[in-house]
Amino acid sequence: METIAFARGVPAPEMLPVDELQAASARVFERDPVRLLSYGTGGGYDPLRRSLAERHGVEPERVVVTTGSLQGFSLLAQVLARRATLEGRRARVIVEEPTYDRPLLLLERLGIEVVPVPLDGEGVDVEALDRAMARGADLAYLIPTYQNPAGATLTASRRRAVVASAERHGVLVLEDDPYGLLHFEEPAPPTLFSQRGEAPVAFSGSFSKTVAPGLRVGWFVLPEELAFDVATLANDTYISASVLGQATVHEFVESGAFEPNVERARGMLAERRTHILDALERHLPEATFTAPAGGYFIWIRLPDGLDAASVVAPAAAEGVTFIPGISFGADCGAYARLAFSSPPVDQIDAGVQRLAAACTAALALA
Amino acid sequence: METIAFARGVPAPEMLPVDELQAASARVFERDPVRLLSYGTGGGYDPLRRSLAERHGVEPERVVVTTGSLQGFSLLAQVLARRATLEGRRARVIVEEPTYDRPLLLLERLGIEVVPVPLDGEGVDVEALDRAMARGADLAYLIPTYQNPAGATLTASRRRAVVASAERHGVLVLEDDPYGLLHFEEPAPPTLFSQRGEAPVAFSGSFSKTVAPGLRVGWFVLPEELAFDVATLANDTYISASVLGQATVHEFVESGAFEPNVERARGMLAERRTHILDALERHLPEATFTAPAGGYFIWIRLPDGLDAASVVAPAAAEGVTFIPGISFGADCGAYARLAFSSPPVDQIDAGVQRLAAACTAALALA
Repeated sequence: METIAFARGVPAPEMLPVDELQAASARVFERDPVRLLSYGTGGGYDPLRRSLAERHGVEPERVVVTTGSLQGFSLLAQVLARRATLEGRRARVIVEEPTYDRPLLLLERLGIEVVPVPLDGEGVDVEALDRAMARGADLAYLIPTYQNPAGATLTASRRRAVVASAERHGVLVLEDDPYGLLHFEEPAPPTLFSQRGEAPVAFSGSFSKTVAPGLRVGWFVLPEELAFDVATLANDTYISASVLGQATVHEFVESGAFEPNVERARGMLAERRTHILDALERHLPEATFTAPAGGYFIWIRLPDGLDAASVVAPAAAEGVTFIPGISFGADCGAYARLAFSSPPVDQIDAGVQRLAAACTAALALA
Repeated sequence: METIAFARGVPAPEMLPVDELQAASARVFERDPVRLLSYGTGGGYDPLRRSLAERHGVEPERVVVTTGSLQGFSLLAQVLARRATLEGRRARVIVEEPTYDRPLLLLERLGIEVVPVPLDGEGVDVEALDRAMARGADLAYLIPTYQNPAGATLTASRRRAVVASAERHGVLVLEDDPYGLLHFEEPAPPTLFSQRGEAPVAFSGSFSKTVAPGLRVGWFVLPEELAFDVATLANDTYISASVLGQATVHEFVESGAFEPNVERARGMLAERRTHILDALERHLPEATFTAPAGGYFIWIRLPDGLDAASVVAPAAAEGVTFIPGISFGADCGAYARLAFSSPPVDQIDAGVQRLAAACTAALALA
């Protein structure tokens, strides 16, 4: 019996634009081989940096292209931790609860104080966020659109409130937006970054969810001084990210393949979302959730307040994987994150059926 | 006037095997597209990991493939610093003086104590190294072959002494070997790693100097527990290095293109070495140095004990760049590192002539 994996937020194999990337790779080998195969800079492959800068309406010096956006987050957190240390204090980062588990781990490793702010079906609680910002922070790390793990999207009015709080308290907001283009019906409200005005808002994006993770290309748009420090630390740590990956994805974008591929990914993800909603209704009707309007994830509260961690082993025995809520926040034990992006679409129903069986087994053990 | 760059240890454009890498990239897109474009693991692209493990005669679990070997050094240093902190002490790393400047910077950033041990034309001073090891250290970082920056090669008898010291004191030696295959006449003595016996010796290698830096592929061979910790930290920091780069270089190696390319690189580097030795004799006869038997660098003591840092600006004005010794060690102010790998071979003579003019100018100012 093959395991059905809801655990990892990865694109399904059929979502990867293999032919277009192969063609892009071949063209860039023809066009720019010496730059492609030489060291780049900490800031990134210059043509890609410029095109991202244009997309975001900023100077290229504010863009830093990294080995996926997690690497960029690690560098940014290191810079912030160091700045705080030089001021004789501990860095402080506000996060949503729940939030993406990997940044949490990086913050903990660096000894940074993490301040969680609750999140509901309409995104982060903006009043709690404002109060947390009022106490001061080096960064507020938010995933406003199709959030990981909650699938929630910050409403338009809450977005305005977040930007206003950032400006009022002078706290830098990092808008992490790997999923923002992957809407199922209506596009999401405009990004925080696009409506930042004078507020301190930074942005991170990734080609991992819209093109292919194996390229390992993510990017940050930062205030100029911070961009310089992050690019310098990147250079000091690994000289440059893979030029091959950066040049290939740049060529892919320039050739006009990006938009059609995003459109294709939206369709495939929307179909998967429909399947998982149907399956949840059929097999786990007691589970509660907010249906995601885009992205890769659905965040369900398990029946009868089951501790999701206690379901992991029975689920593995049934042949299905997911991530228990505790990985994403201390108060999230009753939740499970299901990534519907990666299993074959015709296995989603069976996967949820197995999860339901695992819940029954866990309840019997409890 | 175009600047002649002796500053960076990079391969000349004509050293890059563009056609073979393009063919390897095309083949891997045909053969293994889904794995190529998906997330890898912190330990590296599995087929490459296995082939490197076979090359070094170890289990694949002991190999960690990273975004160039500098990234791996950063991860290793972080793991060692954390272990020491958990034991309530500061980590301590022995280095050669001079040594590669980028690891020095990473060690300093992490607050690790750096213990320099002098090096001469026959490599590191093994008695001083033994004394430093006797005082205890978390690592001894050595570049035994065609050293960066000194170009020196550790003799066979000194290699035996280093291995014996490592075993006697239980201090892990990291043999960093990016240049080892790039000999001009005789191959270098066997690596420390190959003659380690029961001694704790780790190894790091890179495809940046033998194939192409833009691939960003380096690797570490570590004791099993350390390999696990480094691979885990890699996964936590950037999930996986560029799979594209790793898969391409693996295909390049498997196709049999690696050995002929190394042979070609040796010839090109040997020719450049001859040119720079001739040019130094002609234009800077008072400079002293050990002629390198391989690699990318020559390390010269400037005439009249000139402070190399004071020559940087006049050199830039003359149109030539190099790195002053102070970057590589506190006591190295009178030295300059010239990388003869990268400038066009027919400009090497002019480059040294400009450097000589810059020395004259600096002496006039002194």
